[in-house]
Amino acid sequence: MDSRYDIAIIGSGPAGLSAAINAKIRNKSIVVFGRAELSDKLVRAPKINNYLGLPDITGLQLKDRFENHIKSMNINITFEKINEIYAMGEYFGLMVNEKMYEAKTIVLATGIEYTKALKGEEELLGKGVGYCATCDAPLYKGKAVTIIGYNKEAEGEANYVNELVEKVYYIPMYRDELNLNENIEVVKDSILEIYGKEKVEKVILKHGEISTDGVFVLKDSISPAQLVPGIAMEDNHVKVDVDMNTNIPGCFAAGDCVGKPYQYMKAVGQGQIAALNAVLYLDKQQVN
Amino acid sequence: MDSRYDIAIIGSGPAGLSAAINAKIRNKSIVVFGRAELSDKLVRAPKINNYLGLPDITGLQLKDRFENHIKSMNINITFEKINEIYAMGEYFGLMVNEKMYEAKTIVLATGIEYTKALKGEEELLGKGVGYCATCDAPLYKGKAVTIIGYNKEAEGEANYVNELVEKVYYIPMYRDELNLNENIEVVKDSILEIYGKEKVEKVILKHGEISTDGVFVLKDSISPAQLVPGIAMEDNHVKVDVDMNTNIPGCFAAGDCVGKPYQYMKAVGQGQIAALNAVLYLDKQQVN
Repeated sequence: MDSRYDIAIIGSGPAGLSAAINAKIRNKSIVVFGRAELSDKLVRAPKINNYLGLPDITGLQLKDRFENHIKSMNINITFEKINEIYAMGEYFGLMVNEKMYEAKTIVLATGIEYTKALKGEEELLGKGVGYCATCDAPLYKGKAVTIIGYNKEAEGEANYVNELVEKVYYIPMYRDELNLNENIEVVKDSILEIYGKEKVEKVILKHGEISTDGVFVLKDSISPAQLVPGIAMEDNHVKVDVDMNTNIPGCFAAGDCVGKPYQYMKAVGQGQIAALNAVLYLDKQQVN
Repeated sequence: MDSRYDIAIIGSGPAGLSAAINAKIRNKSIVVFGRAELSDKLVRAPKINNYLGLPDITGLQLKDRFENHIKSMNINITFEKINEIYAMGEYFGLMVNEKMYEAKTIVLATGIEYTKALKGEEELLGKGVGYCATCDAPLYKGKAVTIIGYNKEAEGEANYVNELVEKVYYIPMYRDELNLNENIEVVKDSILEIYGKEKVEKVILKHGEISTDGVFVLKDSISPAQLVPGIAMEDNHVKVDVDMNTNIPGCFAAGDCVGKPYQYMKAVGQGQIAALNAVLYLDKQQVN
C-alpha cells in the first residue's frame, strides 16, 4: 500500500461510512478516522423510522448494520484523532500530533460540533494545546499537563497521561462521578481562558489559575474550521455546493457538518456524493 | 381529508419514497404519483453494494424493502400520470388531463429522462399531444389518434384506446414483437415532426405522413421541463441548490432528475432534504 491514500475520510458516522463504501467500490485506497462506536449520536437514537428500507429500527441496530456492511467490505476504522489538515497543493497532510498521514483528497464528515472553542484554544493549538492526550503525552515528560475533559472517556486518557508526566490537572466539563487516579488533581471551576504568549503558560479560571505546560482539550469532535485552516464556513457549517465541494479543491464535506437537516439518510446520500466526486477529482488528476 | 394536499410527490423511486416517509412522519398530507413497480431502474439492478446498512442486495429485494416500509406507514402510490404542473401562486395545480390535483408544495423525483422530446411535442402539448392515452382517449371519439410507444406497456394502452376512437396508428420506438389489436395500423418509420398550426394536424415521417387528431407519446417519464413550465434547468437536469430548492418557490426536486451521480443513497438523501424543506416552507406559510 502506497503511504499516500487516495481518500482520507474524517468521521465514522453515516456520512463517513457511506463515503467509505463508495470509495472502496471504486477501488480507491482509503483511510477512515473514527471511533469504535462509529457514531455517538446514532447509537443513542431510540428509534429511527425514516431510513428507507429499514423501518422501525433502533440506532444501535442500525449501527450494527453499518458495522456489518463495512466489515463485509474489509473497511477498517483508524482510531486516531486528526488535529489539523493542511492543503499541501498536490496532497493533504493530516496531523496526528507529530505523525502525519497523507491523502490526495479529503472527505470531512465530522458531524456537528456542539462545544464552542475556549478562549485561547484555537490560537494556541499546536503551541501546547492538543486534542489527543494519549498521542502527545510523551512530549510532556517531567512537566505539568492540564486535561479539559468533555466526557467520561477523557478520564481514561487522563489516567494514562498521569503515568508519563509529572503532574496532571483534570477539569471536568460535565457532571458525573469521576474515576481518576488519585494523584490527579481535580479542579472544579469555570475556565475563562487558556493563556500563553508564544506557547501555553496557564489556564485562567474564575477562581484562580493553573500553571501548565500543556493543555489537552478532549471533546467528541473538533470543528472543521479548526481542523482545516482556510476552509469556508457559513452559519457554523462547512460551505458546500450541491456536489459537496468545499472551497478547497480536493476537499469535500458531507453530513451534519455541512448543515441541516441533521438526518441519517441525508448524511448517507451526501457521503456518497462526496466520495464519488472525490473519485472524479482523482481520475481527472491522473489524466493530467 | 382536504382536497388540497400539503405535498405532492412526483415519482416513486428512491427519492420520491424517501420524501414520502419523511413528509408523513412530519404529519403532512401527501399524494405520491408513481408506478406499481415503484422504480424500473431499481427493479432491474442485479446487485447493489452501496446502500449503507443493506450490503449485497438485489434491486428487487431493495424494492420489496421500500414497499414494506411505505406500507408500514400507510403510504399509497397513486397510479396516474401527471401531464403538467402549474404554479398558481398559493398552490400548484397538477393536471391529469381534465382532472386536477392541488398541492401546496411539490417534490419532483421523476428520475432521469432518457428520451429526447420529438420536434413539435412540447409546442403542441395540450393541443392534441398528451402523455396519458387511457385518460384522454374519450376526447377523441370518432377521430384518429396516433400512439408513439416507447415501451411494451404502451401496447396495452393502444388496445384500450382502440375501443374508444375511430382509428389508431401505432408507431413503436423499440424493437420487439408487437401485441396489438389487429385493426390498429402499425407504422414502422422514423418520426421527423409532430405538426400542427393551432393543434395537432399530422405526424410527419421520413417516408410519408399520418393525418391525426391526437398524438399520445407514451414513455417512461416526461422531462421536468415539460412537466413544470418555467422550471430552471442546467445540463438537462433540474437546477437545485443544496437545500433542493428549484427556482420556483415551494417546488423542490431530488434524485436523478437533479443530476449525477445517479445513485440510490444520493437520491434517498436528497428526497429527505426536499421533503423536510417542503415542511419548513409549509410551516412558514402557516405563520404568515
